[in-house]
Amino acid sequence: MGLLDDTLKAIKPVDESRAEAVQKRLDNKTKPPGSLGRLEEMAKRVCLITGKDEPDVTKKAIFVFAGDHGVADEGVSAYPKVVTAQMVLNFLRGGAGVNVLARHVGADVVVADIGVDHEFTPVDGLRIVKVARGTANMAVGPAMTREDAVRAVEVGIGLVNEFVGRGYGMVGTGDMGIANTTPSAAIAAVFTGLPVAMVTGYGTGITDEALSNKVSVIERSLSVNRPDASDAMDVLTKVGGLEIAGIAGVVLGAAANRIPVVVDGFISSAGALVACELKPEVKGYIISAHRSVEAGHLSVLGRIGHRPLLDLDMRLGEGTGAALAMGIVEAGLKVLREMATFGEAGVESEKVN
Amino acid sequence: MGLLDDTLKAIKPVDESRAEAVQKRLDNKTKPPGSLGRLEEMAKRVCLITGKDEPDVTKKAIFVFAGDHGVADEGVSAYPKVVTAQMVLNFLRGGAGVNVLARHVGADVVVADIGVDHEFTPVDGLRIVKVARGTANMAVGPAMTREDAVRAVEVGIGLVNEFVGRGYGMVGTGDMGIANTTPSAAIAAVFTGLPVAMVTGYGTGITDEALSNKVSVIERSLSVNRPDASDAMDVLTKVGGLEIAGIAGVVLGAAANRIPVVVDGFISSAGALVACELKPEVKGYIISAHRSVEAGHLSVLGRIGHRPLLDLDMRLGEGTGAALAMGIVEAGLKVLREMATFGEAGVESEKVN
Repeated sequence: MGLLDDTLKAIKPVDESRAEAVQKRLDNKTKPPGSLGRLEEMAKRVCLITGKDEPDVTKKAIFVFAGDHGVADEGVSAYPKVVTAQMVLNFLRGGAGVNVLARHVGADVVVADIGVDHEFTPVDGLRIVKVARGTANMAVGPAMTREDAVRAVEVGIGLVNEFVGRGYGMVGTGDMGIANTTPSAAIAAVFTGLPVAMVTGYGTGITDEALSNKVSVIERSLSVNRPDASDAMDVLTKVGGLEIAGIAGVVLGAAANRIPVVVDGFISSAGALVACELKPEVKGYIISAHRSVEAGHLSVLGRIGHRPLLDLDMRLGEGTGAALAMGIVEAGLKVLREMATFGEAGVESEKVN
Repeated sequence: MGLLDDTLKAIKPVDESRAEAVQKRLDNKTKPPGSLGRLEEMAKRVCLITGKDEPDVTKKAIFVFAGDHGVADEGVSAYPKVVTAQMVLNFLRGGAGVNVLARHVGADVVVADIGVDHEFTPVDGLRIVKVARGTANMAVGPAMTREDAVRAVEVGIGLVNEFVGRGYGMVGTGDMGIANTTPSAAIAAVFTGLPVAMVTGYGTGITDEALSNKVSVIERSLSVNRPDASDAMDVLTKVGGLEIAGIAGVVLGAAANRIPVVVDGFISSAGALVACELKPEVKGYIISAHRSVEAGHLSVLGRIGHRPLLDLDMRLGEGTGAALAMGIVEAGLKVLREMATFGEAGVESEKVN
């Protein structure tokens, strides 16, 4: 048995039995019951996920997986493939969106080359965990081998295991990969059963003409590969991506370790959906960060069964939404930890009307 | 001429002429144009408000105005009036929701007794700027005199002037006052022209029976006082509140000083609406923090012409939503300040599709 199977076995459903007890603690804080809405929901969720009364999520990391896509050759992206590697270097220098927003909330950014079509010089801060130099073009055959898909998922699991061992209490997901809304839309179409055109969007900002080509390319990929919706690893193998696999691994690893995983936008949600289809119990460990502008994201969230925390018209990926959402989750936990109770504050708690 | 008139005169419309130049700077950052959505909007707005290329909002304060309401005698709130004063003490000890969330984003909380029906011992951190020991019961006559309404607005203006002098770059509004959703709903009804029942909600969580009484009380207040919708100070005087007036003052003061003002939920938005009706140019200086659960809030935001930043099912007031939104605004400014440009990062910026 490998790491993936072990991890799937280790995942248990979130224990919801303490929900009422945690809500009682929240209701005893100096505020009308429930009046902090989703902050309270986040505090409660993290308590249930971790099984702890005072979960500590101060140490938190966003894993940004970078990978290339053979399907980029079909003209599905607004930018050339070389941008994936260029952006990795930008991450390492701290100049990308996710760096800025992660610093803002006190999260670490872990950049992982899981499948970039470029050989990086080993440098501090870059995890070289390359499974392949990008995927094959899914419009003509499977994006990768099943073995590589498993390896890429295990890269994600391994990273979470390592960081949990180092005291991290919350993880987030991010992605970089020119053309990666294309496999994400393919995954969305397979698992939701919706028409490709309904779950395919403008990505980084392609033209209408390129969008119509992108839809055709995805339809072709699905008819060439015939992914089996009841076998999530088959879907990932045939129409997925290496960074998407890594993200699926992070979600599985977080669930196995009973820590919350904050899932970014469309690409991350596609990865999370693969994890959910492999093991539906992981849904309870996921916090959906934000609603991306990208078409298809809400359908994927619907399939996961989540309402996103934020809706800021963002569509950058990288884990930028996850970073902002981590700040909100942490705020929720501070409500539980730091707010005074009615008793402590000497505030009247009895309602009169 | 008093402070209010001087301030109204000093307010100029936000200079939108630099919008394109700021957007160009944002578009030059390493991301697809517009892909950070409302973060970019916030960065741009604050640049335009302040007229600066690198606005500094690190020093930021939330003004929490506390005031009592004569109309509490009509049974419109779930909690007894004494809670207003008790919560002021909770704010001073740092145990309330707004304290926790303001700490989370690095904002100061300024607690101002503008109208609590209690004599506080002067202590560090409490600004005693009391205009009256609460309002009169608006269901039987005007809530306050016009002179007191002006004084309370000027308290808000004065605080902003002071804090801007001390280097603060962004302010937020907050409120505490048992029964204060009642005058807020009255103000909303007058300015939007909507039926009272449409803009009146459960506040701190009253029963259905108490809600129907609350609607009647507001309807009675409007028919007894006949506030003149074309005279915002008349509306504030007759069916307003002292903390609502203070909030209106903060909004006016921020606009006069050309700094952004982050407006919290329903009560704060009622105060902001009074300011907008006095001087429509202030709309451009307002950032609407979040969508409150309270009925009527969206109608007020519609009248102000704003889409709220967050939607977290919150309804606590105090400035809790303003605190969280300040964190988002600051994130937007960091995008502008800290992200690398395509040139700096050596990332390809030319689109291919």
